Amino acid sequence: MQKLGAEHSAIREIFEQANARALQIGRENVFDFSLGNPNVPAPDCVQEELKRLVSEMPPERLHGYSSAAGLPEVRERVADYLRGTFGANARAELIYMTCGASSSLTATFGGILNRGEEVLVLAPYFPEYRVFISQAGGLMKPVRTDENFHIDAQAVEAAITPKTRAIVVNSPNNPSGAVYGAAELQALCKVLSRKSAEYGARIFLIADEPYRELTYGADVPYLMNFYADTVVCYSFSKSLSLAGERIGFAAVNADMEGAKDVFAAISGAARAAGYVCAPTLFQRVCAHSLGKTGELSVYGGNRTLLYGALADMGYACNKPEGAFYLFVKSPEPSAAAFCARAKKYGLFFVPSDSFGVEGYARISYCVKREMIERSLPAFRALAEEYGLVK
Amino acid sequence: MQKLGAEHSAIREIFEQANARALQIGRENVFDFSLGNPNVPAPDCVQEELKRLVSEMPPERLHGYSSAAGLPEVRERVADYLRGTFGANARAELIYMTCGASSSLTATFGGILNRGEEVLVLAPYFPEYRVFISQAGGLMKPVRTDENFHIDAQAVEAAITPKTRAIVVNSPNNPSGAVYGAAELQALCKVLSRKSAEYGARIFLIADEPYRELTYGADVPYLMNFYADTVVCYSFSKSLSLAGERIGFAAVNADMEGAKDVFAAISGAARAAGYVCAPTLFQRVCAHSLGKTGELSVYGGNRTLLYGALADMGYACNKPEGAFYLFVKSPEPSAAAFCARAKKYGLFFVPSDSFGVEGYARISYCVKREMIERSLPAFRALAEEYGLVK
Repeated sequence: MQKLGAEHSAIREIFEQANARALQIGRENVFDFSLGNPNVPAPDCVQEELKRLVSEMPPERLHGYSSAAGLPEVRERVADYLRGTFGANARAELIYMTCGASSSLTATFGGILNRGEEVLVLAPYFPEYRVFISQAGGLMKPVRTDENFHIDAQAVEAAITPKTRAIVVNSPNNPSGAVYGAAELQALCKVLSRKSAEYGARIFLIADEPYRELTYGADVPYLMNFYADTVVCYSFSKSLSLAGERIGFAAVNADMEGAKDVFAAISGAARAAGYVCAPTLFQRVCAHSLGKTGELSVYGGNRTLLYGALADMGYACNKPEGAFYLFVKSPEPSAAAFCARAKKYGLFFVPSDSFGVEGYARISYCVKREMIERSLPAFRALAEEYGLVK
Repeated sequence: MQKLGAEHSAIREIFEQANARALQIGRENVFDFSLGNPNVPAPDCVQEELKRLVSEMPPERLHGYSSAAGLPEVRERVADYLRGTFGANARAELIYMTCGASSSLTATFGGILNRGEEVLVLAPYFPEYRVFISQAGGLMKPVRTDENFHIDAQAVEAAITPKTRAIVVNSPNNPSGAVYGAAELQALCKVLSRKSAEYGARIFLIADEPYRELTYGADVPYLMNFYADTVVCYSFSKSLSLAGERIGFAAVNADMEGAKDVFAAISGAARAAGYVCAPTLFQRVCAHSLGKTGELSVYGGNRTLLYGALADMGYACNKPEGAFYLFVKSPEPSAAAFCARAKKYGLFFVPSDSFGVEGYARISYCVKREMIERSLPAFRALAEEYGLVK
């Protein structure tokens, strides 16, 4: 734990380096593309509901405990929304309000894993999965994706053993920007069903969906509709730009056999980790703002600008289908060397190694457009150093 | 985990029974003394600061991630407050902002315990300690207190083994209402120091202080000033009536040897449990409201009324020195039987068995005064059934 607490994550490390560099050469000469902190304001409906609740609701009710799983009316509204929007078999009694997607994930891993069981993750993947899965006594097992970072069902099948208890599907994907389509998800679920039957043991599908609303045209199929043993881990961090307020939910598919028991196990794990309830003010605010988002089109504009410019300069980029990350191929074998070289030009982004693939960098474009514009000469100079520019 | 999630805590169970009974016989005939949910409104400074922040601060900054340990300016203000108010050796870099006292505790247990190590708790104790300590791989070991529920240093000494890694001190105490004085704490710390030296292994003192400001004249000594190896687990739930908003902190004593490493271990445990950061809006609100409280005198009034009336009726009550619980001796050997009999009169309170002592009941008086007044005939009828009334 001491090691875990003393180390920054690779992402946070780059962020700290960018800050340190800004003190040396001036903030205006540093282009920090490290973090996934939304820079779009929360929508007006959030701010208005916050003001309304604080003005109108008696504070002892507004700020009092909710039951562990959340306020009943909030859970009802979330379930209604999931049924109405996605046709999912969501039920209020299977919605657990959480302190964001990370706590949805830790409660879910804690609830479903027995010691030594394996959880598959599709590479590239969010690095904290490893921490969360270990904490629950499990073992993270990365599975490669195809050359466009989409699901390779055969690779998944080959990775499944009798110890496989779950697979995490994160779409839109951090860091690749891939959004998995219906066909590849169907192929994946077919594999999961077949192998579950073969080994006589259930394999859960954990849909980690903080970026659900951040897409550029792609549809994000709702996985409850594809596979009974699905738990959806959602966060309002990105859709409503509330990353610091820690609010989300875990939703157990009502189609699941023994859904109530799985829900109880998730509740138990949340309880054991000290999550008494999700923050009550933001439970109410989010229930009021279901289906709303901040001005996410800002990210679309950033994507067009950054992808277009970098592709023109000769960088090989994976065009993001969702989320707000550009995954760029390193012009030299080592992504770490690429990122180190970029720092000379004031460019700070994260090598892909910590995401479980080699030879790429994650450029987070949830930043001011103006910073992207100012950064382009630096990207060009870096491209010239590599001889990419034609 | 399934069992943990499916079971209500003993406290929550009584609360649910009271609700069910209210549906049968009418809310006005049920006197629910089960929960510790503050019924005093948050103070105006909280509501005003909430409004000000929502109106004035750009939402993307207000609601964005903080670093894992909290906003630097918030940690500074908390440390300043602890230094200024208690003369404690608190430092910003050793303050970890948390989602309330429960997460302060789980992060602390997770950070300091190795598998199989023991944590002493003074009985009666908050029942979730057992859950939190087990989750961290430890073993909870209750130690009896004296006849007034104060510390028996000899009993503590006798309970310490080479496996003892920590003791939890919860003062003002839930459920007994005891507030431990300086002399008994000094005696305790002397024992801890002596046994640490004898076994060559550190014993941490974990001060669980959600009720610090709820006292009726008693002083609550600051344990950092008594013992170097102290971690203070604090919550704003009760002082500012923000129980549902999940905000508190863990503070590692700067006098501690290797304080930085212990802090890192606590940070690591919080990270592994999925606590990305404490809710940022309430970090700011609480930093603004340090030293402020709601109208806690309401609880003093309730205490006078309830203690006076019940003592008059012949109940043997432990007069609360702090917190908002009246600990009443059961007039029959079984506290469960006492609480069951009380239900016939519409009275719902919690038998002491789940708090680790026999023969008492916890009557939570963070309720409307008017409900206490209306409940007195029921308490009298119950007393008459037992032949207590002289």
